[in-house]
Formats: sequence, structure tokens, C-alpha cells
Amino acid sequence: MDSLELIRGLARPSSTRIVLLVIDGLGGLPHPKTGKTELETAKTPNLDKLAAAGICGMIDPISPGITPGSTPGHLALFGYDPVKFNIGRGVVEALGIDFDLKPGDIAARGNFCTVDKDGLITDRRAGRISTAKCAELCQLLSGLVIDKVKLSILPVREHRFVIIFQGKDLAPDVSDSDPQQTSVAPKAVTALNPKADLMAVVANKFVEQARAILAKHHPANMLLLRGFSQRPHLPTMPEIYRLKPAAIAAYPMYRGLAKLVGMQVLDTGATIAEEMATLKENYSAYDFFFLHIKKTDSAGEDGDFERKVKLIEEADKSLPALTDLKPEVIVVTGDHSTPATFKGHSWHPLPVVLHSRWCRPDRVGEFSESACISGGLGRFPATQIMPLAMAHALKLAKFGA
Amino acid sequence: MDSLELIRGLARPSSTRIVLLVIDGLGGLPHPKTGKTELETAKTPNLDKLAAAGICGMIDPISPGITPGSTPGHLALFGYDPVKFNIGRGVVEALGIDFDLKPGDIAARGNFCTVDKDGLITDRRAGRISTAKCAELCQLLSGLVIDKVKLSILPVREHRFVIIFQGKDLAPDVSDSDPQQTSVAPKAVTALNPKADLMAVVANKFVEQARAILAKHHPANMLLLRGFSQRPHLPTMPEIYRLKPAAIAAYPMYRGLAKLVGMQVLDTGATIAEEMATLKENYSAYDFFFLHIKKTDSAGEDGDFERKVKLIEEADKSLPALTDLKPEVIVVTGDHSTPATFKGHSWHPLPVVLHSRWCRPDRVGEFSESACISGGLGRFPATQIMPLAMAHALKLAKFGA
Repeated sequence: MDSLELIRGLARPSSTRIVLLVIDGLGGLPHPKTGKTELETAKTPNLDKLAAAGICGMIDPISPGITPGSTPGHLALFGYDPVKFNIGRGVVEALGIDFDLKPGDIAARGNFCTVDKDGLITDRRAGRISTAKCAELCQLLSGLVIDKVKLSILPVREHRFVIIFQGKDLAPDVSDSDPQQTSVAPKAVTALNPKADLMAVVANKFVEQARAILAKHHPANMLLLRGFSQRPHLPTMPEIYRLKPAAIAAYPMYRGLAKLVGMQVLDTGATIAEEMATLKENYSAYDFFFLHIKKTDSAGEDGDFERKVKLIEEADKSLPALTDLKPEVIVVTGDHSTPATFKGHSWHPLPVVLHSRWCRPDRVGEFSESACISGGLGRFPATQIMPLAMAHALKLAKFGA
Repeated sequence: MDSLELIRGLARPSSTRIVLLVIDGLGGLPHPKTGKTELETAKTPNLDKLAAAGICGMIDPISPGITPGSTPGHLALFGYDPVKFNIGRGVVEALGIDFDLKPGDIAARGNFCTVDKDGLITDRRAGRISTAKCAELCQLLSGLVIDKVKLSILPVREHRFVIIFQGKDLAPDVSDSDPQQTSVAPKAVTALNPKADLMAVVANKFVEQARAILAKHHPANMLLLRGFSQRPHLPTMPEIYRLKPAAIAAYPMYRGLAKLVGMQVLDTGATIAEEMATLKENYSAYDFFFLHIKKTDSAGEDGDFERKVKLIEEADKSLPALTDLKPEVIVVTGDHSTPATFKGHSWHPLPVVLHSRWCRPDRVGEFSESACISGGLGRFPATQIMPLAMAHALKLAKFGA
């Protein structure tokens, strides 16, 4: 039996609360000078206290050696097998800007980019143009209808946009135009099966019209499309866990993903303190909170070890705002590692702490990669966090007689 | 999705190199007098240095409690689920002697053995006759055609040979004639389904003809057959991992198995030093090396604790020849445990160390069973070694957006 089906059969509503705090890109690698990771370098008295009172372990977001994107990393934390439920980038971006994707709609992620006079890509992100400029360009491209297919082009942030194709006989099985490298031309979109023929034709016609329209708008004089996809059918967290879940996240993609799995997405400010305030305000209305801290991941991607350390310390300082609410279960972890020395997502497992009246504490006294290795939870797949949290919140019935 | 399919979708060629050093039967059990295993008894400064700089763990070749044969033990190290890809002994032996098995051919492993006047087995290995004697007996038996099925009998080493059956309507689903014990008679080969009726008839006719031919050749006055099998279809390592892999192994079975998964099998001397020289000579031409040390396993099977200790020390002494080449990823482990006190393969997990610029070092400072339990890799299935090695060699793309 699928693990979600097992949990679905055992889940029982109760008055207890679970807070899942996700520090994006939490896991790190040692600084060459000190031998300590970002988390080991940061002063984190509150997280250490939580680790000492709780039970710790190391999670693999997908499986050993596999580096997760943000979507699969989070789906795993929510209990979904991220390989089985592989969600296209277009869909996630569309949900993140509150676009109400209908069955049959196709979404793709777009980048404005720069091409030279020969049409070769010189910058896949068009120098990260401003969000305002992006919105202006999206406006220029909007309202097109190609072969009876209606196109909507919507700005996200900086050079990023979403394109939605609405019409009959569309299928998402087409290749990307984004070659994911520079010094080459954008690729033609090709159908991966006959059902997607129309989709490929429309996408290519759009790209050529956009090339003409954008020609005078250097550095954003071209665009790249990837992740053509349709809204997938996912069983929702209320269906599986019988929870009333809420998401506190500032960045669009995470809000979109939370919506997709059936969470109520709360209005919130973007700082950690503001997110904690949102938690407090809404605490009585939900029994599960996903609280997302994004900037740690960005610091890791930028290779800024010190900034990541400071952001972890900031998260630690805000932790009492959460623990003071005394949720029956607190889980603190990340969706993947983003070591500053690696400057990107990585495959390394990352620490997790679970705190609850009913946890069996281990001997771990600090929240760090090297300490959590010896934790009582051992090393395990991230998809097992939700069953563990549910159990400690006394929300799962006994299996079998 | 199958784990191999996941990896196949993410694998990217790169200029980095992986060396997988397999010390056959590496894992042990404590000596009753010292409480230390073979590996813990051996002086292994180079392996200890590697463990201190790298990340360690314990692998289960198949799953806890399951004792692997040599083939599944190695398949797991190469990333193949050894239960799903169960390869017959006959096929592996045939490949090991460079026999070009065609679809439809059936191979079986043979032993010359000794029977008494009542036909009961007194020695399953005929006193380990010389390879020359084995070749002479194979010659005597060769060229038979039984019921239009052509038989080839080919010597391997000492008492071991391979028999190939070539003809129409053959199927490998028959029982062994080898009872795997003494004081009983060889068993009749029986068809396990109707398709294999002819195979059983031919095998039994051959055994009776061989009994007559061998009668005067005591101690090799009879033979035993096992592992009737056909060449399976395995996706190759170049297909899955996009690697250019090479095998450095002296013993035929391991060479055959390496060939089956698409490795280039290199000519090499049989000593550890000679194998290291082969590695150095061929280092620039491949990006993955499987380097196999066999004698540790034989010492364990012989119950010779001291010899196994010495062979581990010999492997340790040769390690700088490998580390001096500075491959981006080094993995040292075994295919299973062969504790000298147990005198055979066993189910015990065994230590593994992975060394790479991108590994997250743990607190393990020595390469041993008891130290590696606390390693950062935890305890995990051997099939995950390849994904981990690929990740650390930066040969895997990110999964999902």
C-alpha cells in the first residue's frame, strides 16, 4: 500500500497542533577554515534547547545522492513521494501568483533573456531586469490568440514570468525552449507525443512573435520557456491527514505549492518576525502550520556563508515566538541543503528536530549536522516526517488489532 | 519510478573520476580472544586517514539478515537491485571465461566431485584438482550432442567448469543436480515448468554419460551442476550513469559480471600491487573504475583470521597508489561480510567510506565496523552507493524545479 493511503486510513482529527518550520536550504558543508557548517557556526541557543528536549535525526529529501529542486523538497516534507508526484515548474509558478489554473490549461515558466545579433543567448536572465520592467514587457505580450489558443503572460519577479495557454486539444508533453546554457540559440519547442502537436506549434509561433515584439527591449530582447505542465491531481492534506492546514510563506512558489496540497495560504509579511506574528494571529484557527523561511537558501546559493549564518541566527532568535505558543508538536528542518561553499542546492542530508511531550529524547544537545547524525530518529526519508508529526500529535489511530 | 530510471534521467557526463575499491568479504566478526574484527585488528593507517577525511557508514548488500552470494553483492554495489536482477551462476561463470552467450543458450556451473562406490558424494570439489586436470577432463566430455542439443564443457579453475547447452526449445527453469552437501547422491535435474522438460532430459542424460566417462578418473569421478540460466537483459552502466567504466579484477566471475553491466574489463595481474598498476596505466581513459580484491574473502571462507588481517593490511599499504591519483570520488567497501569465525559469507552489514571534496565529513576517525556505525552516511542499502558516488562526482543533475 502507498504510504499516504496507510496514513489516510489512520488519521484522526484532534485538538492538537503541529508547526513545521522550514528553514530553506538549511543543510550546509564545513567552512574550509573552521571545519564547521553554517548551522554549526551560528549561535542557536533556542534551537539547541529544542534539540536537547526533543528527538533529532537526518533526512534525505528524495533519496541519497539526489539533489532536490524546491518543489520536490517541500512535497517530501508534506509527506508526498516527490518522485511519484513530480509537478511541473509552470504549474508551481502559476499557483504562486494566484492564477486559478483550470483543467486543460497549460502553464510554463518563462525567463526574459538577452540574445546577441546572431540570436545566441548571452544572459539567461536578461541582467535580472526589475519586476516593474518585467510587468511592462508582459503587458506588451499579453492578449495574443494563436490558433484559437488564448495566451496570458504574467510577471513573477525580476526576469521571471508565467505563460498560460488556454484552448482545446492542448497537452503539456513538449520540450523546453530554454537550453539552460548560454552561447547557443533558444531551442524549438517540440512535441514529445502527437497529442502535444498543437501545443508545440502555438508555443513556437508565440516565441517568434515575442522575438519581434521584444527586439527593441535589450537586455530583455528574447524569452525562454520551460516546464510546460498541467495542474496535477494531488490528494490534499485535509483529505489525507484530516488536518486544517495553513501556510505562512512569503515567496510565491511556496504559497502556490501549499495551495496545491490544500493548505490555506495566510497573508503575511516577509520577515521572520512578521511570519511569527502571522502564526500567533492565526494560531487558534488551524491545527497545522507550515512556516517557511526563504532567505537562508538564497544566501547559500549566493555562496555567502556569513549571511547564511546570520539568517540562521535570526531564525533562532525568533523561535521563542513559536515555542511560547506551546504547539503539541514542533518540527524544525529544511527542504534540502544549500551549502554556501557549493553555491547551490545539494544532495546532502539535513538535520531535523521533533519536539513533543511524547517524543523519546535522545542524547543530542545541539542542532547541527554532526550532532543530529547520532539522533534517535536516525537517517530517514523526509516523507516520514508527517507520519511522525501526526503520531506525536496523537492524530493517528493504531494500525491493526 | 525505479531508482535506476531516476538516476538515468539525472546522470550527466563530466570529467570527474570515481574509483570503487571492493575488498571482497571485508566485514568480519570479533575474534573471541580480542573482541576485535579482522578489520579492527589490522593496522590500516591509510584507510583510517581516508575515513577521517571522508564520510563513513554501514551498508546492507541486500537487506538486513540476507546473506548475499558474490553476484548479488556486486550488483548491489553497481546500483542494481540484486533481488530484481537475479543472475544465474551459470551465466556469470560463462561470461567470466569470455564465452559469448547467445540468446537461447543455457549455461550451468559445474564442479568435478568425488563419489564413493555407492555413488554418494564424499568431496564436492574432488580435492580441488588442478586447473590442468580440469581442462583435460573437460576435453574428454566435450563435443557431445544429446537430443540435437550441442554441449560445450569449458574449464574455469581447479574443480570448476562451465557447461553450455545450445539448441532449440531449451529453458533454464530446472533444479540443480548439486545437493550442496556430502554423503548423499547427486540429485536428478527436474523441470520446474513444462517448457524446461527438454533441458532436464538432456542434463540428466549428460550426467549419466559423464558418470561413465569419469569413472576411472578418481578423485574427479563425477560432476555436479547448478545455476542453469540464460543471459539476462540488464541496462548497462554506460546507459544508466553515462559513465565510461572499467573493471580491474583477476577472478573470472567478477570480470564476467563487470562485462555484463557494460564495463570494459582490463587486462591485469592478480596481486593488489599489479591491480593498482593497471589502474594507473588506464587512469586517463575511463571515468569509473571497479577495483576488486578477492583474497580477503577466500581467507574468511577458510576461517583464517590472521591471513584475512594480513590481506587487509596489504590492501591498506597499496592504497596510496590509488589516492595519489586523486580521483574526485573514492569509495572503499566490500560486497558482503565473510567473518573468519563464520567461515562463509554472512548477512552482517559492512563498513563503507566515501571520500570527496564535496563530502560532509563526520566524526569517524578509523575504518572499522564499530566506528562506521556512527558515520554520517548511517546504515543504508548498498544500491545507494552509486547514486552517492555520482552525486559527489557532480555527475547528477537536480531533480525537479
